[in-house]
Amino acid sequence: MAKKLTSRSENYSQWYNELVVSAGLAETSAVRGSMVIKPYGYSVWEKMQRVLDDMFKETGHENAYFPLFIPKSFFSKEASHVEGFAKECAVVTHYRLKNDEKGGIIVDPDAKLEEELIVRPTSETIIWDTYRKWIQSYRDLPLLINQWANVVRWEMRTRLFLRTAEFLWQEGHTAHATREEAIQEAETMLNVYADFAERYMGVPVLKGVKSPNERFAGAVETYCIEALMQDGKALQAGTSHFLGQNFAKAFDVTFLSKENKLEHVWATSWGVSTRLIGALIMAHSDDNGLVLPPKLAPIQVVIVPIYRKEEEREAISIYVKNIMAELKAKGISVKYDDRDSFKPGYKFNEWELKGVPVRLAIGPRDMQNNTVEVARRDTLEKEMLHRENIAAKVENLLEQIQKNIYQKALDFREENTFKVDTWTAFKEQIEKGGFVWAHWDGTSETEQKIKEETKATIRLIPLNRKSETGKCIYTGNPSEGRVVFAKAY
Amino acid sequence: MAKKLTSRSENYSQWYNELVVSAGLAETSAVRGSMVIKPYGYSVWEKMQRVLDDMFKETGHENAYFPLFIPKSFFSKEASHVEGFAKECAVVTHYRLKNDEKGGIIVDPDAKLEEELIVRPTSETIIWDTYRKWIQSYRDLPLLINQWANVVRWEMRTRLFLRTAEFLWQEGHTAHATREEAIQEAETMLNVYADFAERYMGVPVLKGVKSPNERFAGAVETYCIEALMQDGKALQAGTSHFLGQNFAKAFDVTFLSKENKLEHVWATSWGVSTRLIGALIMAHSDDNGLVLPPKLAPIQVVIVPIYRKEEEREAISIYVKNIMAELKAKGISVKYDDRDSFKPGYKFNEWELKGVPVRLAIGPRDMQNNTVEVARRDTLEKEMLHRENIAAKVENLLEQIQKNIYQKALDFREENTFKVDTWTAFKEQIEKGGFVWAHWDGTSETEQKIKEETKATIRLIPLNRKSETGKCIYTGNPSEGRVVFAKAY
Repeated sequence: MAKKLTSRSENYSQWYNELVVSAGLAETSAVRGSMVIKPYGYSVWEKMQRVLDDMFKETGHENAYFPLFIPKSFFSKEASHVEGFAKECAVVTHYRLKNDEKGGIIVDPDAKLEEELIVRPTSETIIWDTYRKWIQSYRDLPLLINQWANVVRWEMRTRLFLRTAEFLWQEGHTAHATREEAIQEAETMLNVYADFAERYMGVPVLKGVKSPNERFAGAVETYCIEALMQDGKALQAGTSHFLGQNFAKAFDVTFLSKENKLEHVWATSWGVSTRLIGALIMAHSDDNGLVLPPKLAPIQVVIVPIYRKEEEREAISIYVKNIMAELKAKGISVKYDDRDSFKPGYKFNEWELKGVPVRLAIGPRDMQNNTVEVARRDTLEKEMLHRENIAAKVENLLEQIQKNIYQKALDFREENTFKVDTWTAFKEQIEKGGFVWAHWDGTSETEQKIKEETKATIRLIPLNRKSETGKCIYTGNPSEGRVVFAKAY
Repeated sequence: MAKKLTSRSENYSQWYNELVVSAGLAETSAVRGSMVIKPYGYSVWEKMQRVLDDMFKETGHENAYFPLFIPKSFFSKEASHVEGFAKECAVVTHYRLKNDEKGGIIVDPDAKLEEELIVRPTSETIIWDTYRKWIQSYRDLPLLINQWANVVRWEMRTRLFLRTAEFLWQEGHTAHATREEAIQEAETMLNVYADFAERYMGVPVLKGVKSPNERFAGAVETYCIEALMQDGKALQAGTSHFLGQNFAKAFDVTFLSKENKLEHVWATSWGVSTRLIGALIMAHSDDNGLVLPPKLAPIQVVIVPIYRKEEEREAISIYVKNIMAELKAKGISVKYDDRDSFKPGYKFNEWELKGVPVRLAIGPRDMQNNTVEVARRDTLEKEMLHRENIAAKVENLLEQIQKNIYQKALDFREENTFKVDTWTAFKEQIEKGGFVWAHWDGTSETEQKIKEETKATIRLIPLNRKSETGKCIYTGNPSEGRVVFAKAY
């Protein structure tokens, strides 16, 4: 708190790390690559969970829970899936410890598992092994299930929220009678994610599909939403996969159709994770700290009393009590920070750092004049408002803030979106950052070479993109439309 | 569905297993000892979570998330804790797989961890290692944190919900400046659990403390709630531990007191798990299936239309629409089962099996007469009610059912609670089942011998027990009061 954050322009990456820790969102743990999500960070996740869970249920999904461990052999069943997932993972080989002769504890060599268990990096395999028992007839379809869970991917270079060995997420796994219905589901869930990102997180996103190189291991098509961070790098905020019949074939999941034919089931899976908190931070926050969208802020309004004498403090407390009741009656979460051990200036800084959208300050003169000082976090503007109808005014302000931070992020994205048509211009722009719309010849080789030379990847092929003939920026070969390149998290 | 359940009197254990599976609550998985919690079972857990989480927050707790993996060395730090927990556990030794020469996948021997990681069986160690960084002064206390998580304990003999290798739970971990405050916290949370069991689950519980033999590994005192199942066996439904300064000393967590002295922090931990679902099932259900308390039932009311012709079905649908709206307006969850492929009798059986508290049946004659047939699951009674104010009547009925199943369970417990004073009577009663209040000389040796000879354990030493001098049923040595024995899950 005492120390100012490194500014974004000075060192964006350091600014992010300092902010996550000093705002009390998360910290590294004693376990390499695993983070501790602190109460303030976890309460943002809880808010996200609640909204997403409601959206999933409104679209017909139910929650269930599948095992954390997956038998090693399951990963071999879907050929491309194993390539993508089974490599960097946590492997359980033993099930017992014992005391050694020196009084320490060691792994008991007699307690070796016959088949090793993998800590789930994602659950397609164990879930499709289960669905085989649940699906016999078209009447059992569609099967629309979601799981909230922890997963582990052994990452070598980790960053809080953005890339950690263990993270929290939800994974939807659905089964359908037809190809069309499964594609429809994958697109529906992409739209749910986009809607959540824009309406709740205040983060505008592009929707599209991945190139084959960037596709989920085992998917026929990977839909994604991509957001632009303030440093000009892209962040994949959610994916929804059309899995075709790959997992149904790998795990022998068939159903008797209405026409009485035995067919393989069609599948989707889709997920978002605690990574969204990283996106939220990097999209909106500034050199003073977090800027949280009101719809996901654990505390929407903080009230700070300004007093010198104890009797002033007491009088303000009574005055504030009614204001709090009025705010709460409107469903606004409010905190009264009457800690006596800190001065108002210190509190202002702390709540700015924590990104509370609205701050009210009330002193003896305000009580006399029937006023309240209202400060908004997004613009740092202050104004004096009359006490009357203060709750309605704050409610309105919260809506304005929600809109404003979305608009600001949208303006930023528009200013940082470029069309380029030459390789030189492309390299220059990628170096500067932003979304770069360019022609590509459609081959994996070209994509790979562009990545090697510039670190840029194809973030997505936009949904319903305008057909536009052009020439690939790298090879000059013909292209039917632009794709979106960027350097990415 | 077609097959009737084994009856409780015939084979209680088999009845339980069949019921869990056929009601769609859970099933075994491909991973030894791990279960799949199916959507219907998970929705009961979600209801429990929501209520408990609100209760935790009302008592000042916040949620956070700590790593799944715990370095092996952490378990050695608290001497009695390692004895209790580090033995039967899942051990991660490697972090990578690779292809072998035959195209299969094997654990990469080059990717061996320097220090093995234990999949958390409980999180005291990793959390207290973290608290060391969070706590410096008395101003940082109390620290009141809860975690919703999965944990793994390598169990050899598993049963769905009651004992599985992986299970879901919540674990509270709090830190306090004084011994008294920590004890107060442990007792407060015991009362929260008891309140939840009785008011929501409809399961009466005894409150007490464990004998040293049954204490949590690392605790100074273990508080518990114990419930009696229909087969006369006890089930521990929740525990709350006063940990003294054991973990603070093991992990060197100190604070500067108001008097400016460096002191070790006082601790508690407390948890309930998906085991509660097992308790719920065994406390209330009957030979027709589940009996769910209305407050935790995923579906509180099911409406079944009785029709022959399609036009009757359509007319009933319109009639039902208003009833559903009235029920929903009262916050009652209701399902309209208008599946055409099943007959009413089949549906009645299915919803009985699934324990839906209230069933409404509506046919053409009911529409004419302005009546509704109302059946309650707990007593299987039916009555004809006038359509007017039906939502208020159902609401009232749900409250009655909630009360009735609690009362029934309480009556059962009272009928199956015995005081015995001789070893012969004790052995006989333990064999028959129930809570047996008896004198015990207070020694671990006697407790152990009683367990060996009868399989009975001391479930608890009642809180605020009546002082009563007597003689130990086993040794005849003097005792100051009765403790509660039972065979237990």
